[in-house]
Amino acid sequence: MKLLEERIKEDGQVRPGNILKVDSFLNHQLDISLLEQLGNEFYEKFKNKGITRILTIEASGIALACLAAQHFKVPVVFAKKAKSKNLDGELYTSTVHSFTYGKDFTVTLAKKFLSEDDTVLLIDDFLAVGKAMRGLIDICNQADAKIAGIGIAVEKGFQSGGKELREAGYDVYSLAIIDEMTDDGSITFRS
Amino acid sequence: MKLLEERIKEDGQVRPGNILKVDSFLNHQLDISLLEQLGNEFYEKFKNKGITRILTIEASGIALACLAAQHFKVPVVFAKKAKSKNLDGELYTSTVHSFTYGKDFTVTLAKKFLSEDDTVLLIDDFLAVGKAMRGLIDICNQADAKIAGIGIAVEKGFQSGGKELREAGYDVYSLAIIDEMTDDGSITFRS
Repeated sequence: MKLLEERIKEDGQVRPGNILKVDSFLNHQLDISLLEQLGNEFYEKFKNKGITRILTIEASGIALACLAAQHFKVPVVFAKKAKSKNLDGELYTSTVHSFTYGKDFTVTLAKKFLSEDDTVLLIDDFLAVGKAMRGLIDICNQADAKIAGIGIAVEKGFQSGGKELREAGYDVYSLAIIDEMTDDGSITFRS
Repeated sequence: MKLLEERIKEDGQVRPGNILKVDSFLNHQLDISLLEQLGNEFYEKFKNKGITRILTIEASGIALACLAAQHFKVPVVFAKKAKSKNLDGELYTSTVHSFTYGKDFTVTLAKKFLSEDDTVLLIDDFLAVGKAMRGLIDICNQADAKIAGIGIAVEKGFQSGGKELREAGYDVYSLAIIDEMTDDGSITFRS
């Protein structure tokens, strides 16, 4: 998606260690007008798939999921990363390793919000190795929910997550796929 | 706000220990159509205040902040609860005690996203003792940003947060204020 690629080139910052900072518009400060357009792009791609719920993971995926859900007219459910006193009842859980935070964490979702009757669109802001997305897929499998597709804003195409998910048969739609980043700040997108 | 009060009565669940679960529409599963209407209500209240940014805290505040920001046409910034490798540069930090999670945590915000030029609307899903909101106010004070108002979906009016903030001069607008909850599930709203 040209719009997102241009924004990444303009405002994204490459840091040593293959870190791309897009915190001025995607995951710390949120450019709502941009996210509306990204959400609409997911809708155009998946609108005929019978989506009943959008599933994401806190925290950065929530904004994008909400602005997509406005078009689909379906609820968003977000998996939680920490055990809250307010989470009771039956839970789906999955263990995920985060490279960003350097540790494992347990992802939880109340069972009442996902079932075999659901056709799910998974949404997240980033896809790199794909650990968080694997956690969401695991939860969908536990629920026997159908996964209609995966919508990602920025995929690090030089890492394995997207390739593995596509090879496993998932319909992964990434709005910008980065094939190469260099420490001097240049970014090459997949065409 | 009648709409929210009715939804709380219909779908909220009271748990022992003054816990109100609204996870089916506000903070785990998200009813986007409802949140759009809550966001619009904040806009109607604060539209003439010259808001330049909406500040919230991950994770539950993000959805509501985004759907309000669509009306204000301003960016959302969300304070983060965990130290991420991707957070670098100068940070505002504040320590907050969470009763939900039973521990202290550090709230962080990149300095570049909030300054003395900003007029801020603070938004969160819940206000009880007000610890998280105090953290956001602390961050605004560090930035010398002006606080134009505080928008809350559900205030637990029998706890001290809202009263203290109003006495301190903040324009707190809570869409539903609960004056009493009993363990048998009855909820009394402030009229």
